[in-house]
Amino acid sequence: MPTTIDLNCDLGESFGAYRLGQDEELLSYISSANIACGWHAGDPMVMDSTVKLARERGVAVGAHPSYPDLLGFGRRYLECSPAEIRNYLIYQIGALNAFCRAHGVRLTHVKPHGSLYNQAAENEKLAAAILEAIARVDENLYYFALAGPQTAFLKDLGYRMGVRVIYEAFPDRAYTPQGTLVSRKEPGAVIHDHELAAKRALSIAQDGVVKAINGAEISMCAQTLCIHGDNPQALDLVRSIRSTLTAAGITIAPPRGE
Amino acid sequence: MPTTIDLNCDLGESFGAYRLGQDEELLSYISSANIACGWHAGDPMVMDSTVKLARERGVAVGAHPSYPDLLGFGRRYLECSPAEIRNYLIYQIGALNAFCRAHGVRLTHVKPHGSLYNQAAENEKLAAAILEAIARVDENLYYFALAGPQTAFLKDLGYRMGVRVIYEAFPDRAYTPQGTLVSRKEPGAVIHDHELAAKRALSIAQDGVVKAINGAEISMCAQTLCIHGDNPQALDLVRSIRSTLTAAGITIAPPRGE
Amino acid sequence: MPTTIDLNCDLGESFGAYRLGQDEELLSYISSANIACGWHAGDPMVMDSTVKLARERGVAVGAHPSYPDLLGFGRRYLECSPAEIRNYLIYQIGALNAFCRAHGVRLTHVKPHGSLYNQAAENEKLAAAILEAIARVDENLYYFALAGPQTAFLKDLGYRMGVRVIYEAFPDRAYTPQGTLVSRKEPGAVIHDHELAAKRALSIAQDGVVKAINGAEISMCAQTLCIHGDNPQALDLVRSIRSTLTAAGITIAPPRGE
Amino acid sequence: MPTTIDLNCDLGESFGAYRLGQDEELLSYISSANIACGWHAGDPMVMDSTVKLARERGVAVGAHPSYPDLLGFGRRYLECSPAEIRNYLIYQIGALNAFCRAHGVRLTHVKPHGSLYNQAAENEKLAAAILEAIARVDENLYYFALAGPQTAFLKDLGYRMGVRVIYEAFPDRAYTPQGTLVSRKEPGAVIHDHELAAKRALSIAQDGVVKAINGAEISMCAQTLCIHGDNPQALDLVRSIRSTLTAAGITIAPPRGE
Repeated sequence: MPTTIDLNCDLGESFGAYRLGQDEELLSYISSANIACGWHAGDPMVMDSTVKLARERGVAVGAHPSYPDLLGFGRRYLECSPAEIRNYLIYQIGALNAFCRAHGVRLTHVKPHGSLYNQAAENEKLAAAILEAIARVDENLYYFALAGPQTAFLKDLGYRMGVRVIYEAFPDRAYTPQGTLVSRKEPGAVIHDHELAAKRALSIAQDGVVKAINGAEISMCAQTLCIHGDNPQALDLVRSIRSTLTAAGITIAPPRGE
Repeated sequence: MPTTIDLNCDLGESFGAYRLGQDEELLSYISSANIACGWHAGDPMVMDSTVKLARERGVAVGAHPSYPDLLGFGRRYLECSPAEIRNYLIYQIGALNAFCRAHGVRLTHVKPHGSLYNQAAENEKLAAAILEAIARVDENLYYFALAGPQTAFLKDLGYRMGVRVIYEAFPDRAYTPQGTLVSRKEPGAVIHDHELAAKRALSIAQDGVVKAINGAEISMCAQTLCIHGDNPQALDLVRSIRSTLTAAGITIAPPRGE
Repeated sequence: MPTTIDLNCDLGESFGAYRLGQDEELLSYISSANIACGWHAGDPMVMDSTVKLARERGVAVGAHPSYPDLLGFGRRYLECSPAEIRNYLIYQIGALNAFCRAHGVRLTHVKPHGSLYNQAAENEKLAAAILEAIARVDENLYYFALAGPQTAFLKDLGYRMGVRVIYEAFPDRAYTPQGTLVSRKEPGAVIHDHELAAKRALSIAQDGVVKAINGAEISMCAQTLCIHGDNPQALDLVRSIRSTLTAAGITIAPPRGE
Repeated sequence: MPTTIDLNCDLGESFGAYRLGQDEELLSYISSANIACGWHAGDPMVMDSTVKLARERGVAVGAHPSYPDLLGFGRRYLECSPAEIRNYLIYQIGALNAFCRAHGVRLTHVKPHGSLYNQAAENEKLAAAILEAIARVDENLYYFALAGPQTAFLKDLGYRMGVRVIYEAFPDRAYTPQGTLVSRKEPGAVIHDHELAAKRALSIAQDGVVKAINGAEISMCAQTLCIHGDNPQALDLVRSIRSTLTAAGITIAPPRGE
């Protein structure tokens, strides 16, 4: 039985007169697009054209909601109550979902952006607020969350709240022996060698393991791999990963219902 | 057969720390609530609590989208392309609809706010963009639009685009002999006598006519009556109108599918 | 020699169609106004009319800058770098200063708002960023900061950076024996008895002491007293404080250069 | 006596994570920079670094205020009262001026952006509101406005209000025989040939004339020439213009007081 894995990328991050990313090119290589909802990036014109493009390429569409921080691109922590987080997500998921309806596409998943994504991997109350937002809008939406031992709690939490959690790994990021991401401030945090990143992607997809920064092999169960789209090398990276995975007989496809 | 008419009010126009309106009280008297979507007023917390309240009172929920102008409360004209208007509305309708899903309520209608409402009564391209937004998100949503001879074109336009137009009249506003609203800058534009406003409401509901500012009786076919909620007298006004209408055997209820 | 103390209040916190506060009435009782700069509240129309009103009443005008968070009224922590804080403050101080120039008023002080104010009392890097903003725009501007032993460091920091720190106490707030504010979540945090608050104001102004929540008398050196303007009792409170202070021969006036 | 002309460019139009323009390169060729103030583009971090860079290159710094429309990059008409325009400009000029003070630079001029610039060339009330803002903040600031017979009224208006108007021409834009800009929607509106644009710049600087789109020579008195910075060819264009002007003995320098 062939193994399947999802390749996802954050898209639709242009805003007004500002262009960002290589959405059109990246959509040829990935299976899931996380589309910005206007709070850290994106606007209704960009959401419309990005959903349309994803549909044309047969790429699954997810919402990519954020703290309200266009100025900081959603990368900064903002002190919010769980009720605020829940309602901010309901708002943004709903906005993107309307573009999906307008284009006859089904919204498949939700991946919080930037600081909100990181917070949710550490803060159970925040994660519960996100899951509650998803459960209340559409319980069929998957929640894309950081893979690793420290987020094992999310699986149970999601199960209790009726939402399926899809774990995400980063083939071009170094991991600590504990399975957390090495901070970008540390040397070696980002793996710039595309061949190596592709091998790591394959190792995660095929065996559920990855080499930590100290050389130890650690468990890394993930159903989706994130490709950072906001740098010029993104296209090369996604091509390397895709060709390595497909050469090994792995199917690139969005997550499926169990 | 008893006549039925809808009473609607703009609600959910608080924002963050700012409180506006008497939503809780007004919801006891109206049958349809037009809820702000965060672009001229409202925010996710307010949208959540307002949809919840409307559900508890059995009041139909509509979206009340606007130009992007929180600073101007959506009362100022902003030069937008039809594509921008369409996508701005898809975004806002979707955001409110998600709160409806979260509360198990069906979104019933769309009433543009302020300057966008007024523009749509004059500009066929803009009206078509609004109708297209509705048709693409959910063709069962009604479009609440200004009643009067000058907006007769909307009925046909809506019919062609598969969206039902519900005409709205203003019992506390004076009308010109041509059936347009007397500008608020003119003396007598607003009728402050609640008894008189209630009589006008009855005349519109029962006979489809209203007295113009020159005394002439003019045709005014409307399926919904707007109560302005943003003034202290709003509660008195809606009580007068409601009691006058019900005393005459008229049912207050949201519009129904044909 | 008669003692002098400043009474300050946060004003100009309306926004667009939203009205907040009792600016016009409060300006008759205070000596310094902290005027919102559009980032948590306020807008150019409100800034213009508030500066004009302050000038007419002879009340000193200060800038009341905030994190960029209109939605949260500046009450939420936002993770910002010192350079961001410095530039956010330069921007806001400059914007308000232009209204001062337009009305022929001298800007006298800067009091950060809400969460930024609280953070600056705890975080030396943040406080230094605020002081740097002030020093670079106009070193004659006073920095209004929380009084108490834990902010003693600010005096030195201000001295080194060439900016005078004016310490602020809260007559209607309970203090811990350590001289910090009792959290609003604790019972008794806010003193609702205006007579008692006025006595505390007098004790601070005359003797530089205040009774802590456990009854102990603690040192509280402050050159300005803050009156919260965002509640209906604000006018009663400021009247009580003003009359108690003036009856004791204390002059209400803005801080003066040394 | 050598002729002098100013070369100006809109700069500082990046925002948060979004980069726009080639500010650093362009600053080597121009004499005046119009720096965005955060309402259509720019933010406090960008304003800080752009003012700093302009000072290092000895380029005069002006404010480039806009309608409040980040989403539309200030290119769309927004219906505002003269009082709103005046206060929006006071706010933005003040914000930029504070960065000038922080860097020890004198603010020299104000050039409204996009739709506001165009409106001000047609609408005397709007132009008066802009001039009033300048007069109230600092009457030494020049007002950069569109040159041409239709804006002759501005000179008188500025004179009466105590503000000097500096007329601006566009060497890479076609003019009608009446001296107005040919709409960008018309063919030939933009002159892509840099040599030709440079010749037109020289003709304006030296003789105060330019060839209209029909071949007729028309009067075009301008003290500053605008270089559009938002396209890849901007650098080539400004180099051509600068070298052509200097080769003809014309000095490139910001406008001087009379």
